[in-house]
Amino acid sequence: MEESLQHRPWIRKVIPEIVPPSLRDNTADVDRLLKGLKKPLGTERVHVDLSLAKTLPHTLRKCEYRVQATLFEDSEGWRLIGVEPRGGDDRLYALAVDLGSSTVVLRLMDLTTTETLEETSFHNPQIQIGTDILTRIHFAGQKGGLEKLQRLLIDRFNQEIQRLADKNNIPITTIMGMSAAGNTTMTHFFLGLDPYWICREPYIPAINKPGLIRAKELGLRIHPDAPVLVFPNVGSYFGGDLIAGILACGMTKGDQIAFLVDVGTNAEVVIGNSDWLMGCAGAAGPALEGGVASMGMMAAPGVIDKVEIDPQTLQFKIGTIEGKPPVGICGSGLIDLVAQLYLARMIDLRGKFVAEKCGNRLTEADGTRQLIVVPPEASGTGEALTLSQPDIDALIRSKAAMYTILTTIANTVNISLKEVSKFYVAGTFGAYIDPRSAIVLGMIPDLPLETYISLGNSSIEGTTMALLSAEAREEISRIRDQVTYLELNVNQEFMNLFSAAKFIPHTDRSLFPSVKGPEE
Amino acid sequence: MEESLQHRPWIRKVIPEIVPPSLRDNTADVDRLLKGLKKPLGTERVHVDLSLAKTLPHTLRKCEYRVQATLFEDSEGWRLIGVEPRGGDDRLYALAVDLGSSTVVLRLMDLTTTETLEETSFHNPQIQIGTDILTRIHFAGQKGGLEKLQRLLIDRFNQEIQRLADKNNIPITTIMGMSAAGNTTMTHFFLGLDPYWICREPYIPAINKPGLIRAKELGLRIHPDAPVLVFPNVGSYFGGDLIAGILACGMTKGDQIAFLVDVGTNAEVVIGNSDWLMGCAGAAGPALEGGVASMGMMAAPGVIDKVEIDPQTLQFKIGTIEGKPPVGICGSGLIDLVAQLYLARMIDLRGKFVAEKCGNRLTEADGTRQLIVVPPEASGTGEALTLSQPDIDALIRSKAAMYTILTTIANTVNISLKEVSKFYVAGTFGAYIDPRSAIVLGMIPDLPLETYISLGNSSIEGTTMALLSAEAREEISRIRDQVTYLELNVNQEFMNLFSAAKFIPHTDRSLFPSVKGPEE
Repeated sequence: MEESLQHRPWIRKVIPEIVPPSLRDNTADVDRLLKGLKKPLGTERVHVDLSLAKTLPHTLRKCEYRVQATLFEDSEGWRLIGVEPRGGDDRLYALAVDLGSSTVVLRLMDLTTTETLEETSFHNPQIQIGTDILTRIHFAGQKGGLEKLQRLLIDRFNQEIQRLADKNNIPITTIMGMSAAGNTTMTHFFLGLDPYWICREPYIPAINKPGLIRAKELGLRIHPDAPVLVFPNVGSYFGGDLIAGILACGMTKGDQIAFLVDVGTNAEVVIGNSDWLMGCAGAAGPALEGGVASMGMMAAPGVIDKVEIDPQTLQFKIGTIEGKPPVGICGSGLIDLVAQLYLARMIDLRGKFVAEKCGNRLTEADGTRQLIVVPPEASGTGEALTLSQPDIDALIRSKAAMYTILTTIANTVNISLKEVSKFYVAGTFGAYIDPRSAIVLGMIPDLPLETYISLGNSSIEGTTMALLSAEAREEISRIRDQVTYLELNVNQEFMNLFSAAKFIPHTDRSLFPSVKGPEE
Repeated sequence: MEESLQHRPWIRKVIPEIVPPSLRDNTADVDRLLKGLKKPLGTERVHVDLSLAKTLPHTLRKCEYRVQATLFEDSEGWRLIGVEPRGGDDRLYALAVDLGSSTVVLRLMDLTTTETLEETSFHNPQIQIGTDILTRIHFAGQKGGLEKLQRLLIDRFNQEIQRLADKNNIPITTIMGMSAAGNTTMTHFFLGLDPYWICREPYIPAINKPGLIRAKELGLRIHPDAPVLVFPNVGSYFGGDLIAGILACGMTKGDQIAFLVDVGTNAEVVIGNSDWLMGCAGAAGPALEGGVASMGMMAAPGVIDKVEIDPQTLQFKIGTIEGKPPVGICGSGLIDLVAQLYLARMIDLRGKFVAEKCGNRLTEADGTRQLIVVPPEASGTGEALTLSQPDIDALIRSKAAMYTILTTIANTVNISLKEVSKFYVAGTFGAYIDPRSAIVLGMIPDLPLETYISLGNSSIEGTTMALLSAEAREEISRIRDQVTYLELNVNQEFMNLFSAAKFIPHTDRSLFPSVKGPEE
């Protein structure tokens, strides 16, 4: 994580130096406050909403002009959020948010100390409309649908914000800022914007740069005039969460060329450095997340996340989450399993079961060949956990797609994959995947293992950085404007690259010198 | 009236050049519109409210990207008001408003042609709370009082706007701007700001520079997002109406030193040129407006507005509004009458009746001497119209106050009254007053008559100019920041000047060489 961005806060409490009025100085209340802000703020160009101007004469006199002011800065200057008597409550909080389509993560930040008070998450309540985003987009097109989707999300937010506030014993009006990143569709739902054209050619969002919105415009129950920074997107398939990831990993801070990969429904890939950025998104995700395999599951207790096969004895060593009896397999476990099957020669370079090696683990059901990974007696479900030939085929297509996307985007900017010095992997996928197994499969380039860095939830890291520093906020705009989005054309060249990548690790063995082939 | 300000409109309709989306250009709808605005507007930095962003995807596609956009410019850049299909309704109207405490004047402007469609006015409905502004300020301090005062005004506005729209056959949403000037208290009522501290030492307004407010924030039923330019004030007794007057008369356009005088409840005086401006306000008004004299009235049919007395025959020639039989006298008539009485030697230089000259016109009632101006048989009321000694004394105090204010402010900036090359007189008072009579009384300096220029309603002229041109709008801020407000200290020096001015025309006869004294 890059920590070199300076901390110049853009949501601030300051103490204006106000000279009380006299016959010699008849400056009005609002203008007097602005004058008093000049010293602590460096400018007296501060916008004051009419609603706030209405309360100011009373507030100023109540405490004899000894006030403190909370403000935020946008691209046009400073704006007043509130004014209260000095010496009272001077706490200043904000929320960093990762707007996931499955899970929404919130971090309650103390802007004065820059500390995290609490991190929490909730299931996106829009799941009740549809687990996949396309179902929700379709629902949004029905009468009242969009409003309902936004309402579900905002209501759930308000519930969680109230809980956070109560638990940490803070008034919700001391939460004076928010920063949120999500994919482009989630951002549209959050803002109440129609996502209809996002999923229809030529895939146009309603907005690229939402900028700062006031909390009251979204119905969020924090301070009503608090700014909500909504991360910009580059396009329908390149969202604010990825911008947050680019910010968080710091790949734009130097000359070295880095990759950032985020695997979700789509695989999103960015390559670049401080001078340039290119991004693209492609369908490579589901199989990599383990969602396609017959025994595929999301990470949970008992889910296989680690597999080792002794190449001599062909004995399986199965690792599960929390060590519970195995019940299924997640993406990282699947990649481990298939890589180990290859290294043990139980599958060949096309991913096909090698019968003599698989022995009695190999069986057949529903007309397809299946490998018994966990026999019924060792399984947590009482039934055998199996891997079918189609499961492997799907994984190979996915890994081939991923490698083809990486190759294509690198080719486009005329960079050899060997020149990449950092390879950031975001999200849950990045947190669990064993890069060595992914290299063995030929899913990612054969780079030194230390090149691969797991980012964790880079979206929440990015939104946190953006909350704390004006430089980070400015960097977001710079990143957005610098990204060139590569529309992946599934043309003959792409298909050729894809076909060549549909082998383990690759048709061109020289690309993966560290992976030994069956003949070696 | 100064007409040299260029017409660079700040509320505009423009036609963006929008390239429809394609796979090669996935820019979002909002950002695509902004791109298209670059050519006609010279910038693509345009703020789009979330509420407008919500409607944009549909609007753009409905008319295949052939739209026109209405925008306004504030100090921070352009802001979108609305987007509609091209070739539809491209009318663009706005309202210039003089926010008088008695009368509100509205001008419906066509911003495309810069023509006035209609000018109308209504009695300020706040009169039902109190005719004088202090009563209203007091009422505003009661529970719900301020809201009621604002509501009365805004409701009456909406009624008049609807009438104007219906009569001119335009939808109210095509009215996309407003510009309003009034005294500081009226401006506060209009904005719903507490005027409590305006009339209490040290006389502090809530705000000096309200800037641009959206119509919906005030409850005005024009286009809800239309900007309402509210003229700034310099202090509690130097309001936006006077700034509008300074703008309208053009006194800030050259080196020549000019006076601007507006007589209302107070006499408001400004002196200056393009480099500097000094203003003050003082109690000189009521007697000059005719409000104090026993037969004093507001201008209306039958009201005496012109008096000539033959110095030989001492015959009175009385002019009335619309030539109706006389029923009272207005401010300009009163000034004429007293000047003519002096020139006919029927009053002396202290303003006292000269019995031998007045003859049988002089009578006595209620213990004071009275001059019969119109005998009962010639009067429109059936009763004699009379001028009492206290009426004359009050006028002389007022004229002395006016001359003292003019002298004091000129002394403060070390200018001789003779150096003043233009003397603008605003309002109804300026429209009717005969400068020659005012000079004879020693109310205004003895300058060539062509120096005196009546401005008419300079407030509505100023607000009109501000609606039509960005330069004028910028000039308003410059004017406001340039005015130094002189707090009139009623000290010994002021009292000395005032005492010397309580003669007709003045103790120092050399100041009024054009006025012949009784001994000449």
